[in-house]
Amino acid sequence: MNVDGKAMRSIWVEPDGWSIGVIDQTVLPHRFATVRLTTLQEAAHAIRAMVVRGAPLIGATAAYGLCLALRQNTSDDSLERSYDSLLATRPTAINLKWALDEMVAAVRNRPRDERSAAAYRRAAEICDEDVAINTAIGRNGVALIKAIAQRKKAGERVNVLTHCNAGWLATVDVGTATAPIYLAHDNKIAIHVFADETRPRNQGASLTAWELAHHGVPHTIIADNTGGHLMQHGLVDLVIVGTDRVTAYGDVCNKIGTYLKALAARDNNVPFYVALPSPTIDFTVTDGVAEIPIEERAADEVATITGRTADGRIETVRIVPDGSAVANYGFDVTPARLVSGLITERGVIAASRAALARAFPDRAGAAE
Amino acid sequence: MNVDGKAMRSIWVEPDGWSIGVIDQTVLPHRFATVRLTTLQEAAHAIRAMVVRGAPLIGATAAYGLCLALRQNTSDDSLERSYDSLLATRPTAINLKWALDEMVAAVRNRPRDERSAAAYRRAAEICDEDVAINTAIGRNGVALIKAIAQRKKAGERVNVLTHCNAGWLATVDVGTATAPIYLAHDNKIAIHVFADETRPRNQGASLTAWELAHHGVPHTIIADNTGGHLMQHGLVDLVIVGTDRVTAYGDVCNKIGTYLKALAARDNNVPFYVALPSPTIDFTVTDGVAEIPIEERAADEVATITGRTADGRIETVRIVPDGSAVANYGFDVTPARLVSGLITERGVIAASRAALARAFPDRAGAAE
Repeated sequence: MNVDGKAMRSIWVEPDGWSIGVIDQTVLPHRFATVRLTTLQEAAHAIRAMVVRGAPLIGATAAYGLCLALRQNTSDDSLERSYDSLLATRPTAINLKWALDEMVAAVRNRPRDERSAAAYRRAAEICDEDVAINTAIGRNGVALIKAIAQRKKAGERVNVLTHCNAGWLATVDVGTATAPIYLAHDNKIAIHVFADETRPRNQGASLTAWELAHHGVPHTIIADNTGGHLMQHGLVDLVIVGTDRVTAYGDVCNKIGTYLKALAARDNNVPFYVALPSPTIDFTVTDGVAEIPIEERAADEVATITGRTADGRIETVRIVPDGSAVANYGFDVTPARLVSGLITERGVIAASRAALARAFPDRAGAAE
Repeated sequence: MNVDGKAMRSIWVEPDGWSIGVIDQTVLPHRFATVRLTTLQEAAHAIRAMVVRGAPLIGATAAYGLCLALRQNTSDDSLERSYDSLLATRPTAINLKWALDEMVAAVRNRPRDERSAAAYRRAAEICDEDVAINTAIGRNGVALIKAIAQRKKAGERVNVLTHCNAGWLATVDVGTATAPIYLAHDNKIAIHVFADETRPRNQGASLTAWELAHHGVPHTIIADNTGGHLMQHGLVDLVIVGTDRVTAYGDVCNKIGTYLKALAARDNNVPFYVALPSPTIDFTVTDGVAEIPIEERAADEVATITGRTADGRIETVRIVPDGSAVANYGFDVTPARLVSGLITERGVIAASRAALARAFPDRAGAAE
């Protein structure tokens, strides 16, 4: 999508044909800076330090990390060590392992002098496939927005609420929850986004707002507490969020606080949709609340916050009393009964076992 | 309640017998400092600058502000000007006008040489009445906690979730939502509080956590997004919040985000109680969502945050992109259907028109 009026992706091969460029997401929204990755170690560090984040972008960065490693050493031994070292950067990200497995499959049976070129080709495909999936999600989801727009009076906007960042910064481009939003905006549908700030890491205020602003999509940042009030007063037409994992029955694991917005949507008859690439569906899990382990993260994410001072320095401040305990759960699970539908690359699907099995018969069957 | 092991109130007459002491709540939780108020102007500034906040404490501070004015000038004219100037400090606070009217009634018909002493007596009574009401709320509410404690196994704690600060810092002492909590703790019931940080002003993380810590009540600060997940996993036994206004039908206006917690409580069969002194009930309002105007506050409360740097400075940082719009609604309304009960000084009452009219027949009748 656009940054300062110029179309770009979140990861790219530099003009030298081999080094990799990414956006440094740790200093957004206050500074826009790119980082050039030239070694396996630099790629691994970018993932670990969250210079890049979001499951699809982590997968893409790992894929190119393996390219950088093979450029220096094409041996089986190097391939294996590089795989292990990249896999260890963010052990819970499901796309990371998938992308690394794809890369190994693409190069393993080739002569050593072909491996590097084959790796770059497969990494580029992985990126293009991500964009193609997200573009399809956008096409399928934009129909929901169009239908609402047609019921609006002249001059009224479609108001979408989203939580966290399931935007193009989390993917290679387009994003998942944002895909229908960008497509609607590009098609001249009047759309406005309420972006939950998304404590404790503030991905909504820092990343979603930044990318919407750069692409020119009207938006308003709100505290996470606000969505229920907006829905009570008819100020939200539609909720679209992303997800980290969807179960075989359609339960949705996503950033902590998603469940509260789903409850408010249900209480006020606001449609609640989840946008996802189908690999996010985990057909081995049935009951999301009971079965999905919820990561507890560092207390400092709640206890401190980073921002920009009046004189332009990036500073971290503590916002809780010394000695108070802090709990930091990263995700929650929204039961399928609260989900209006799943926006996938194969269409908008009901959040139910039957509908998911029908849409993905190969994968649903394999997991039984 | 206790600060550094010493019992204190949030407002007091200094040992000199006339000047007024308050806690500077603008620098909590990072610094504990008291401020001495010696003039009407200083009292008005303390309210306006939120050195003191919380409806009952604002009322008490205004009452003593009038005492300070009368000490310098006992004329009718001075009384009237002081009343107006204090009333203008926070125009929406309902207790402020009530306390000022009480003060004027107590001194107006007295000779000028008796007015100052009469004012100090009435201000002290207003403070003591607030403490007496909150103590009664505590007695009535602690029964709910005791009943849960009796069902617990040995070593298990009662987990209460609260939102914002309806603690002793918002009142003269004891607090409203915290009254049953402190009483349970003082009665050796094992209790633990989840304190929502309460964006955007963070009263939960800054004030509730601070006062619980100083009184020795075990507690954990959580992001506002977290309560639903905790309730899904049986980690919350009871929600108790305060309120700014309750309607004749039992709808509850309170800090933005309260409604989301009430929805989660209902979805998980967790009791959701609201603690309030009965003057908070507004018998002239029936439908809270439709009728109560919700204050929109400054965008900066969302866009910036203040905390302590690693080297001990208090610093404000910006946490949203330049140019992104921000909306900041201060309150929301929880419909009566989601409220398990209202903990008042006259007992625990159902959130319904019939129950409220039965408990407060004089006031309910007068408003018809």
